[in-house]
Amino acid sequence: MIQPLNASIAGDTRLFIIVGDPIAQARSPAVFNEIFQKMDVNAVLVPMQIPAASLKAAIDGLKTIKNLDGIVVTVPHKIALAAQVDQLLPIAQRVGAINCMRRTDSGEWIGEMYDGEGFVLGLRKQGHAPKGMKVFQAGAGGAGKAVAHALASAGVQSLRLVDVDTAKQDALVAELKTLYPDVEVSVGTFEPSGVDMAVNATPCGMAAGDALPFSIDRLDRGALVADLIMKPEKTKLLLRAEEMGHKTHLGRHLLQSQAEIIATFFGLKSL
Amino acid sequence: MIQPLNASIAGDTRLFIIVGDPIAQARSPAVFNEIFQKMDVNAVLVPMQIPAASLKAAIDGLKTIKNLDGIVVTVPHKIALAAQVDQLLPIAQRVGAINCMRRTDSGEWIGEMYDGEGFVLGLRKQGHAPKGMKVFQAGAGGAGKAVAHALASAGVQSLRLVDVDTAKQDALVAELKTLYPDVEVSVGTFEPSGVDMAVNATPCGMAAGDALPFSIDRLDRGALVADLIMKPEKTKLLLRAEEMGHKTHLGRHLLQSQAEIIATFFGLKSL
Repeated sequence: MIQPLNASIAGDTRLFIIVGDPIAQARSPAVFNEIFQKMDVNAVLVPMQIPAASLKAAIDGLKTIKNLDGIVVTVPHKIALAAQVDQLLPIAQRVGAINCMRRTDSGEWIGEMYDGEGFVLGLRKQGHAPKGMKVFQAGAGGAGKAVAHALASAGVQSLRLVDVDTAKQDALVAELKTLYPDVEVSVGTFEPSGVDMAVNATPCGMAAGDALPFSIDRLDRGALVADLIMKPEKTKLLLRAEEMGHKTHLGRHLLQSQAEIIATFFGLKSL
Repeated sequence: MIQPLNASIAGDTRLFIIVGDPIAQARSPAVFNEIFQKMDVNAVLVPMQIPAASLKAAIDGLKTIKNLDGIVVTVPHKIALAAQVDQLLPIAQRVGAINCMRRTDSGEWIGEMYDGEGFVLGLRKQGHAPKGMKVFQAGAGGAGKAVAHALASAGVQSLRLVDVDTAKQDALVAELKTLYPDVEVSVGTFEPSGVDMAVNATPCGMAAGDALPFSIDRLDRGALVADLIMKPEKTKLLLRAEEMGHKTHLGRHLLQSQAEIIATFFGLKSL
């Protein structure tokens, strides 16, 4: 049986934090603490709202806390904190951003970016293995970059990318072409068709008044529509996709899967 | 019914910490989190082990964390952190140390020392109201100072103090005489007699091989023997006092009462 966490926060509890600004909306504390309890580890994750202006000082200070073993990084600190670790692991190097960092046995801090891996694991867990898929993706920013790399690594057949920022879009397309020669990478349009999955990796859909990030009118009936946005749980895009009879994939699947990956990265061992 | 804390640690949970070095032995996380749950506040307290060498940087960083509202301070940082708040409340000014600090609405940090008040409240809750008592106390260090001030404030009749450091002892006696002219303050001996309560405010008794901090052979049968030490829960002094038929008062009563006082100082309101 899972013990209530209050019984387990003690002087010797190992500490993990999630840093962002704002942080009140973050669901990671609940997700991570549930994982910690299921793993039966003496650890807790708490939220910390740190403004960008004081991020450097705050992280410098936090690194000196002996029982603080790892940090989950969320918006807007993913790029800035890539500069505050001693070593970037391969995906973080490629993407230029981290979503987690931890202290190693030698006392150094290493950072990695698992947003993309979390998305791909979430797809797999929902029965949508990306291997061989023809994929459309809108968004070539931080999250989009991570997801595109992870999809390419996972062996999708093709990847059509669009972003309103065409410089970012073209740079990501060029980078993916170089790194994954087996994947057909190209620039797409905002009216995708002929794909197995359409992914929204833009922030469009977070605000109530947002338009759709792309049109789904020309999508094949069997295509999966996925959104990285976690709040609202069902974006306008996903509601529209449901209406049209498409399968949908929610942002929270990414969160859960990513948290499991990061818990492993943190090196947590069951008691 | 009290909800498990894991259900309540969310992105909008307010954060409190206890800082010390070491911290693994601290019981405050369990005590505070139980109080928070009983109060039904969306708050959590976690332990942070911060070495003295990095205390300044760590606290400077922690102060920038927007959802961090208060800090409980334990050994060895009680004196050092008195210098890291914007304002010391009266007892902290007198004692020159703090055991808690919090952010005010204007964004400043204020600190106070409730070790003594915690001890006195603990006594009251156990039915040992100190008003009018004749008291012997060993120990004029940080904790001893706080407790002596609180006992004098609470209106004990007399206070006999000893410390192996006679300079500290004499300074505290002189200070108490000035501040509390209604209390008979004097230097005592390590063989107290003719008192209602004998208090150990020295660290003697924490280590297994420690001798008794003072002799209790000449104490009146009805005298109460109190120890501030929390670990072991029953010190050699208290075990000996029990053998001799004395009432005893445990260190943990201080912890619980002090935590309730600090929770109020933190300004926590039930949801």
